[in-house]
Amino acid sequence: MTDLLLTGIGELVTNDPSKGGLLGLLHDAAVAVKGGRIAWVGAESEVPAEFRELPELDCGGRAVTPGFVDCHTHLVFGGDRADEFARRLRGESYEKIMATGGGIQNTVEATRAAGRSSLLNDTVRRAKRMLGAGTTTVEIKSGYGLDLEHELLMLGVATSVADHLAIDVVPTFLGAHVVPSEYENDRAGYVQLVIEVMIPAAAGHARFCDVFCDVGAFSVDEARRILSAAQEHGLGPRLHANQLGHSGGAQLAAEIGAVSADHLDHLVDGDIAGLRDAGTVAVLFPTVSLSLQIDPPPARRLWDAGIPVAIATDCNPGTSYVENMQLVIAIATLTAGLTPEEATWAATRGGARALQLGDKGHVTPGAAADLLMLEADSYLAIPYRPGTDLVRMVIKDGVPVAT
Amino acid sequence: MTDLLLTGIGELVTNDPSKGGLLGLLHDAAVAVKGGRIAWVGAESEVPAEFRELPELDCGGRAVTPGFVDCHTHLVFGGDRADEFARRLRGESYEKIMATGGGIQNTVEATRAAGRSSLLNDTVRRAKRMLGAGTTTVEIKSGYGLDLEHELLMLGVATSVADHLAIDVVPTFLGAHVVPSEYENDRAGYVQLVIEVMIPAAAGHARFCDVFCDVGAFSVDEARRILSAAQEHGLGPRLHANQLGHSGGAQLAAEIGAVSADHLDHLVDGDIAGLRDAGTVAVLFPTVSLSLQIDPPPARRLWDAGIPVAIATDCNPGTSYVENMQLVIAIATLTAGLTPEEATWAATRGGARALQLGDKGHVTPGAAADLLMLEADSYLAIPYRPGTDLVRMVIKDGVPVAT
Repeated sequence: MTDLLLTGIGELVTNDPSKGGLLGLLHDAAVAVKGGRIAWVGAESEVPAEFRELPELDCGGRAVTPGFVDCHTHLVFGGDRADEFARRLRGESYEKIMATGGGIQNTVEATRAAGRSSLLNDTVRRAKRMLGAGTTTVEIKSGYGLDLEHELLMLGVATSVADHLAIDVVPTFLGAHVVPSEYENDRAGYVQLVIEVMIPAAAGHARFCDVFCDVGAFSVDEARRILSAAQEHGLGPRLHANQLGHSGGAQLAAEIGAVSADHLDHLVDGDIAGLRDAGTVAVLFPTVSLSLQIDPPPARRLWDAGIPVAIATDCNPGTSYVENMQLVIAIATLTAGLTPEEATWAATRGGARALQLGDKGHVTPGAAADLLMLEADSYLAIPYRPGTDLVRMVIKDGVPVAT
Repeated sequence: MTDLLLTGIGELVTNDPSKGGLLGLLHDAAVAVKGGRIAWVGAESEVPAEFRELPELDCGGRAVTPGFVDCHTHLVFGGDRADEFARRLRGESYEKIMATGGGIQNTVEATRAAGRSSLLNDTVRRAKRMLGAGTTTVEIKSGYGLDLEHELLMLGVATSVADHLAIDVVPTFLGAHVVPSEYENDRAGYVQLVIEVMIPAAAGHARFCDVFCDVGAFSVDEARRILSAAQEHGLGPRLHANQLGHSGGAQLAAEIGAVSADHLDHLVDGDIAGLRDAGTVAVLFPTVSLSLQIDPPPARRLWDAGIPVAIATDCNPGTSYVENMQLVIAIATLTAGLTPEEATWAATRGGARALQLGDKGHVTPGAAADLLMLEADSYLAIPYRPGTDLVRMVIKDGVPVAT
C-alpha cells in the first residue's frame, strides 16, 4: 500500500510557507499519497475526485507531521560509556576524560573489536527505536574506525540499516573524528592517510564528509585540506565546529560553504554573519548540552540572525546517548529558546535542509510520504508532554510501519 | 504466578543498606518471590533449596530495580492546557496565567464537565503509560473538583484505576488546591466547607490530605486548620510548600510533622533544619522546573542536609504533563545535582518513604515483589540514555505485567 488517503487530520504540519506561518498548519485536512509520494494536500472537504477511491486512513482528528530527520548521529558503535557518564556527573570535564583514555578513543577500541554482525545488530536496534519514535531519515557517521578497514566497515553497516528497516540512511565519512592513538606522534601522517587513502575509498559509500574541527581534534588548516579533498571526490562538506572552544570551525564552514556547521556552542557575531552569507545550516544539540550540563546551544541567536536551524540527537555513547527526536524537540523548546513551532520545523524541514534532501521534511505534492500520526490533536503535545511517546503511527514512503 | 525465581540478574538494586552503599547493589544475583512478596535475595550461586523449584525467570544479565513509586501526581483531570504551555513559552508567568482564568481553574472547569467515564478512561490510559514505564505505585490527588461531589468523584476515579491495571494507587484529598471561583469572595466559607464537609466525607476514600500552601493559594493559618482537621479524621498531612515563594509552608510542614513537603523551590536554612528535625520527606520535581524554565529544585542541598528526598512527576496538565519516572530520574541527575544512585533511590525508596509504604521501594524479604527488569546491564542506563524506554518488563506483586 503506497497509495493512501489520510482523512480526519485535526492538524497538519505541512512546513509549506505558502499555507501561512512557519509550519503551514492546516486543520480538518486530508493528504493523498500515490506511489509513496505526496500527491495532494488540502481541506478534507475538497479532496479531488481522483483521490477519493484511494485506501483511506482515518486519523480521527489527530495531528499529522512530517517524519523527523535526525541529521547528525554516530549510531554505529561498540560498547557503551555509562561509567564515563558517571565520572562526568562527579565533575570531570569531557576534555579531561578524553585526555585520560576515555572519550572517543574508548569507543574506537570497542568498535574495532566488535565485528560486523554485532555492530549491525546493535545499530539496527537503535535505528528501530528511532523509527518507532518518529525518525524516518537518519544521518549516520563513521569515525570510530579511524583506519581504512573499520571506517569502511562502519559506512557499510550504516548503509545496511536501511535493508532491515523502513528508514532512510544518509552515510557520512568522519575519518577525521580524532587522531587515533597509533598516529599520536604523526598527526600529519594520519591527515595524509585520510586524504589520500580513506576519502577516495569512502567516496562511493558516503554522501558527505565531516571533520571534528576543534580544540583537541583537527585544526582549521587540517580540516580545510580534508574537506577540499572530499569535495573533489563528490562528498559534501560538514563540520563539527566550535563545540569545545572558539576554534575557527565556524569561520571555515563559512569560507568553504559547508552544508552544515554542527554544535556551535562558542560563537562570536562574525561567525554568525559568515554562516548566514554562506547559506550553511546550523545543526544544534539541546540534549548534548543537557547531558554535558553546559549552557544550551545558541538556537535563539542563530534563528534570529536568519540562519536555518536544525536540531538532532547527536546519538553517541559519550555525550548524548539519545535516540528520541521527540525529546530533542522538548528540550530545545524548554532550554534553548525555540518556540514549539520552531523546534518542530528544526526537527523536520531543518534536518532535511542540513542533509540537502529537498523532498523530505515537508508535506507538499512531490515530497516523500514520510508522515507521523500523533496520539494528540496538535504538534504542541510533543514539547508539552516530554517522556511520553506521542507517535501513534509512522508512515514511510506511504506505508504504515509496524513499530 | 505469584511465585517466581529471578535468576541471571547482572545488577540488582536492593536499596538495602546492609548490602553496602546507598543502593545495596548485588551482582550475579537471584531473587525468590513467594505469594507476591520477596522471599529471598542473594547471590545466584547460593539460592536455598526451597526456592530452586520455583518458576524461573532468567534475566539474562540485565539489571533489576524496585518499581518506581511516583509519590505526587494529579492524574485525574479533564481537558489539557497545551495552549497555556505555549503562552508560558512566550514568557507569561504561571502566576499571571493563574490570575487570568488559566491555570488550575481552567482544569477545574474541564474536570467538572468531563463526567466519570471520561475521567476514568483518560486516567487509566495515563496510568497504563506510567506502569509501562516502570511506575508500580502512584499517588493520585483530588483537587480539580473543589466541591464535595467532584472531589469525591476524583477520589473514586483514582481508586478505580487499580481495578483496571496492576498498579497500586494511594489517593490523597486535595480539596484545598485553590479557592474555586464561586468562593472568590468567601475564602473563609470555602475553608469551612473543606474542614466541616469535605474532609469528613473524604476520610474513607483517601489516605492523605494535602494543601497547596503558597502565594495565591492557601495561607499558613488556613493550611494548619485544614490539616489539623484532616488528622482528626485519620488523613496524614502533606503540603505543597514553597513552590511560588517563601510562603511559610515548609515551616508549617515541620511544625505539624507533615509526612512530606513538596516542591520546596524557595528555602532558607531554617526551613531545612525544621524539616530534618520533623522527619519530613522532601518531594521534588525536576521536570516541573524544566517545564517552567526555572532553577532546578534544591535536591543537593536537601540531600546533603540529611533530609530524605523523593522525586516524582507531579503529572498535571499545567506545569508538568510528564508520566515517565525514567525521565524524572534523568532530569534529576542532569539538572538537580543528584548522582544516578541518589536519583534512583529517590524514585523508589524515597517515593515509598513519602507515602509511608514500608514494604515498597526495596528488595528485601517481606517487601512487595514490585520489580523492573531493565533492557540494560545497569541502573546507570536510565539517566545515561534519556528518551529511551529502558524498562523491558514490569513485575507487580510477583506477576509479570503485559504492557
